[in-house]
Amino acid sequence: MKWTPESFDRMKPLTRTLFAAALAAASLAASAAPEPRGTGDLALIVERATGRLILAETSGRSALGRIEGLGDLSHAALVYSRDQRFAFVFGRDGGLSKVDLLERALVKRVVQSGNSIGGAISQDGRLLAVANYEPGGIKVFDTESLELVADIPAEYGEAGARSKVVGIADVPGVGFIYSLFDAGEIWITDLGDPAQPKTRRFRDAGAQPYDALISPDGRWYVAGLFGEPGLAVLDLWHPEAGVRKVMQHYAKDDPRLPVFKMPHLRGWALAGRLAFLPGIGRHEVLVLDTDTWTEVKRIPVRGQPVFAMARPDAREVWVNFAHPDNGEVQVIDVPSLAVVDTLAPGRAVLHMEFTPRGEQAWVSARDDDRVVVYDTRTRAKLVELPADKPSGIFMSSRAGRIGL
Amino acid sequence: MKWTPESFDRMKPLTRTLFAAALAAASLAASAAPEPRGTGDLALIVERATGRLILAETSGRSALGRIEGLGDLSHAALVYSRDQRFAFVFGRDGGLSKVDLLERALVKRVVQSGNSIGGAISQDGRLLAVANYEPGGIKVFDTESLELVADIPAEYGEAGARSKVVGIADVPGVGFIYSLFDAGEIWITDLGDPAQPKTRRFRDAGAQPYDALISPDGRWYVAGLFGEPGLAVLDLWHPEAGVRKVMQHYAKDDPRLPVFKMPHLRGWALAGRLAFLPGIGRHEVLVLDTDTWTEVKRIPVRGQPVFAMARPDAREVWVNFAHPDNGEVQVIDVPSLAVVDTLAPGRAVLHMEFTPRGEQAWVSARDDDRVVVYDTRTRAKLVELPADKPSGIFMSSRAGRIGL
Repeated sequence: MKWTPESFDRMKPLTRTLFAAALAAASLAASAAPEPRGTGDLALIVERATGRLILAETSGRSALGRIEGLGDLSHAALVYSRDQRFAFVFGRDGGLSKVDLLERALVKRVVQSGNSIGGAISQDGRLLAVANYEPGGIKVFDTESLELVADIPAEYGEAGARSKVVGIADVPGVGFIYSLFDAGEIWITDLGDPAQPKTRRFRDAGAQPYDALISPDGRWYVAGLFGEPGLAVLDLWHPEAGVRKVMQHYAKDDPRLPVFKMPHLRGWALAGRLAFLPGIGRHEVLVLDTDTWTEVKRIPVRGQPVFAMARPDAREVWVNFAHPDNGEVQVIDVPSLAVVDTLAPGRAVLHMEFTPRGEQAWVSARDDDRVVVYDTRTRAKLVELPADKPSGIFMSSRAGRIGL
Repeated sequence: MKWTPESFDRMKPLTRTLFAAALAAASLAASAAPEPRGTGDLALIVERATGRLILAETSGRSALGRIEGLGDLSHAALVYSRDQRFAFVFGRDGGLSKVDLLERALVKRVVQSGNSIGGAISQDGRLLAVANYEPGGIKVFDTESLELVADIPAEYGEAGARSKVVGIADVPGVGFIYSLFDAGEIWITDLGDPAQPKTRRFRDAGAQPYDALISPDGRWYVAGLFGEPGLAVLDLWHPEAGVRKVMQHYAKDDPRLPVFKMPHLRGWALAGRLAFLPGIGRHEVLVLDTDTWTEVKRIPVRGQPVFAMARPDAREVWVNFAHPDNGEVQVIDVPSLAVVDTLAPGRAVLHMEFTPRGEQAWVSARDDDRVVVYDTRTRAKLVELPADKPSGIFMSSRAGRIGL
């Protein structure tokens, strides 16, 4: 017996209705399944006030939908799974959320501490580490299940006090590097065997490291110091050489002033061998030679810089600013080390992110409730996307990068 | 009227059968649709003899399926769409094929020339350029439709002869750079307005450039010369300075010998500021300082190197060899510039590719019909995947990279 168009006509009315209902139900089930698509051109935008993420795509430059229920997203950061299907969101409230980009849904959420400040994903994609203020230490989770795998309290001194942890990053191999604010130490924890974490401690790294970053090749770990002038630099190719301090002359006249505001969301401006660092309290971007970690130039800019972000082709560095200059973005030309353009994306620019090959820049303007997308070649605005108090912007290409 | 489990029982047998058939058909349609998945951990492996690609994934390290009907895949290369859903395969027979990774199917295939040698995708992902031997020139296609957008014959000299084109790469902005073997020229074509291509010619670039590459930041274009010793280097930040020749002393005693065999599939070994180039005809890898393009060291290796590939963390460079040493791979330690390990993946190692963050290396052994996956930390074999005469291996993370 075969199905023919006449078969439907031969059915009784009730049967026809049931038959049509079955087809409709099957069709609905199919449309509820996520639409297959590549995940190489996706971006997540944090809507900080409402605990939501916007899922967007950079090919057509449009919003695809929202993912809700993520808790307190002020100061939130996220990392991607190695297949780019999932993102792991680190909330300031200690929440760790796993979201599915294709289903556009929250998969799981755990509150793993009282107060956290970012996290990282291991090189093999199997482990997440979260840096916690309270209680101080790191916790390590399985990326599949979000089950706790290891808990490493940041104990220091003879009384066993626990330090706030900041500046966490993945290192090549299965492990993480991070700084202990109160202890003035840098730790590297090897989780090749997650049941037996091995931690190497670098004591006397510097007074109050308050944030840090790792270079895109995973070689250099650089921590900004709050309690003394300068930066702490660790060469992971030569850890036996220990931590060295650089730029100690910078702002030495006022040691109470934090010298550098390191990028909070792990922006890193390395263009060739030059590093571009915001000099806080000063209207300048500091350029260092990473071969020697000595000063190359101080570039005068519009205000106090917050982020200095290198375009992926390393030809330009884009800079945003603290209040009252936070409505503008300046563009530094790397060959000439000079400001060549000033843009006005909107009020309260909080973050910038380039597409992986650098042809677009996405900029969040919190107080104008929009994300502005620029063509980096012409610096023309391509589109403005509405967003509710947007902050961090994270492209899915981070999945394939060390330290992001 | 509502659907209840009893409704099915109340149907007549014919109706029940039809109803079940309708559900089964709907279910089959759903299962024929591609299964949604992230595309960040995918790889394509060329099976050169049979015109097929293996689609694999690097999280579980398994083959997912095959894509067939791609023509002559000897010497084939491919690039990815910016969303990582599609790949564009450049065959030696002039075939240009678009494949869908999620559907695992050939979408479209055009034969665009008689003999081609690779291609590139523009920074914005909208254009493909193919380098042709016969007739000599480049052709530019729309990535969506594979329609021809621009045809640029590589004419030179007063008689209007056409040169073979080699060494094509994307440059930041909408354009491509390539070399003219017969003309000894390097051309940059700007396709910001595809209807009005603008080509800048660098004449007297060197005798017979036979292959070339671009640095990961898109700044340096380096062509190997067949007709004279040395390399032609163009700084795209300062094109007005023109092409300069470097390493002209290398092998100058026998100018008929090709000095360097540049990587055929655009491997590029840049570790920090050092470039690692295979010295052909010699059992050595040449290390150059890209600040000055002068020689740093010659590292003795097992045989004549074919590819020198930097691990993404720039800590190691892996090298394979021409016959009769093509069953081995050597590992160079970058800090010490010395060979530290020799691996034996199988007979006729043709290509190697690292996962984007470097924890795995995938190596094709043509004559043993397998791809061997290594843990780069321990150098243990993780798995061997059967493959029919495998050659090039291409990770989907290339979608987000300049020059790949």
